Amino acid sequence: MNPGTSIAPVVRFLGDVAPMSTSRTDWLVAGQGLLRAGGPDAVRLAALTESLGVTTGSFYHHWSNMDEYLDALADYFGAEQLEEGLALARATHPMERLRRLAGLAWDRRMSALDRAMRSWATSNRRAASAVQRADRVLLEFVETAFLDLGFERQEARVRACLLFSAGVAHYYVPWPIERQDVDRLLTVVTAKGRARRPKKPVRNQRDEHA
Amino acid sequence: MNPGTSIAPVVRFLGDVAPMSTSRTDWLVAGQGLLRAGGPDAVRLAALTESLGVTTGSFYHHWSNMDEYLDALADYFGAEQLEEGLALARATHPMERLRRLAGLAWDRRMSALDRAMRSWATSNRRAASAVQRADRVLLEFVETAFLDLGFERQEARVRACLLFSAGVAHYYVPWPIERQDVDRLLTVVTAKGRARRPKKPVRNQRDEHA
Repeated sequence: MNPGTSIAPVVRFLGDVAPMSTSRTDWLVAGQGLLRAGGPDAVRLAALTESLGVTTGSFYHHWSNMDEYLDALADYFGAEQLEEGLALARATHPMERLRRLAGLAWDRRMSALDRAMRSWATSNRRAASAVQRADRVLLEFVETAFLDLGFERQEARVRACLLFSAGVAHYYVPWPIERQDVDRLLTVVTAKGRARRPKKPVRNQRDEHA
Repeated sequence: MNPGTSIAPVVRFLGDVAPMSTSRTDWLVAGQGLLRAGGPDAVRLAALTESLGVTTGSFYHHWSNMDEYLDALADYFGAEQLEEGLALARATHPMERLRRLAGLAWDRRMSALDRAMRSWATSNRRAASAVQRADRVLLEFVETAFLDLGFERQEARVRACLLFSAGVAHYYVPWPIERQDVDRLLTVVTAKGRARRPKKPVRNQRDEHA
């Protein structure tokens, strides 16, 4: 093969110079990229080395086989990555904590990863356990923010579930939901008020049943 | 086989008397039961006839093969079943409409079916199209209720998404969320008020970053 025909061998060569410098986290982040794009079946050694531009040497420096790597990839979501997310969301004011966490949840890449992890979790016990841990820790973080805003426990929990589900639900939205809608959403879940009565005569629904 | 050893042959016999009386809807409802319990792979002709206590004659009265049946099963969720759900949710007062729809969404069987359909939709175009149609129609129904409660369009849409996502999100909740929490949740999304300020000194979070 003529090395001049493609940049890939050069990238691979550069990767070869110091394969051990590709960290454990680099491999896991690369795996999450594949997971986001094509689900767990897309996470293969060839695709990983292609994505990192390294040979398999570095892989075996960190893991002895693919099963061990996939376990680590599943665990990562509910461990180091979760801790990093929480570290970014920590702030004195509870509203600011919720705002930062929502900013992470509504990030396009994180949202796609969350979807991929939940899908993987339906068939993989290790992924299920990571998702379950992340859900528990994040919900408690959100609950604490609502408690700090002055809500009683059960009220804080229901609001935490409401906000959290908005971040992890996957459904088809017929209208564009914009970035600023996250602030609007936070206002709704943190507001205290009475249920609103209609101000004007209520339109009848077609095929009235009641 | 001695007919006295099990009730199954009797049930099958009774089914045989009038196989044509098993309606199209009976077959679809039975299919949804299998879908809820074991996903699309569990929807097989043998399991369907077992579940309905009939022979395959009635099946071929309605569909010419399993592929045709599976298409109908996928479609059903976004068509007849959706219309029936909406018919049950129709009421003059928008709060009552939301309450009825939430009652259906938080029904254990409907929740399990929703989960199964969304999972199936990741690998089946027909199921995806049914879920997409159901989401669009239901979100517009919920949006209309919020408009009728007096909210402006974008506010109504964000609240509709918030309520809808609470109904379709699948995550691990570390605390029991009870039936009455649905009312609490409806109160939050329909309330009008300002974001709440903390009343007491805010607890510091561990590992303060800001």
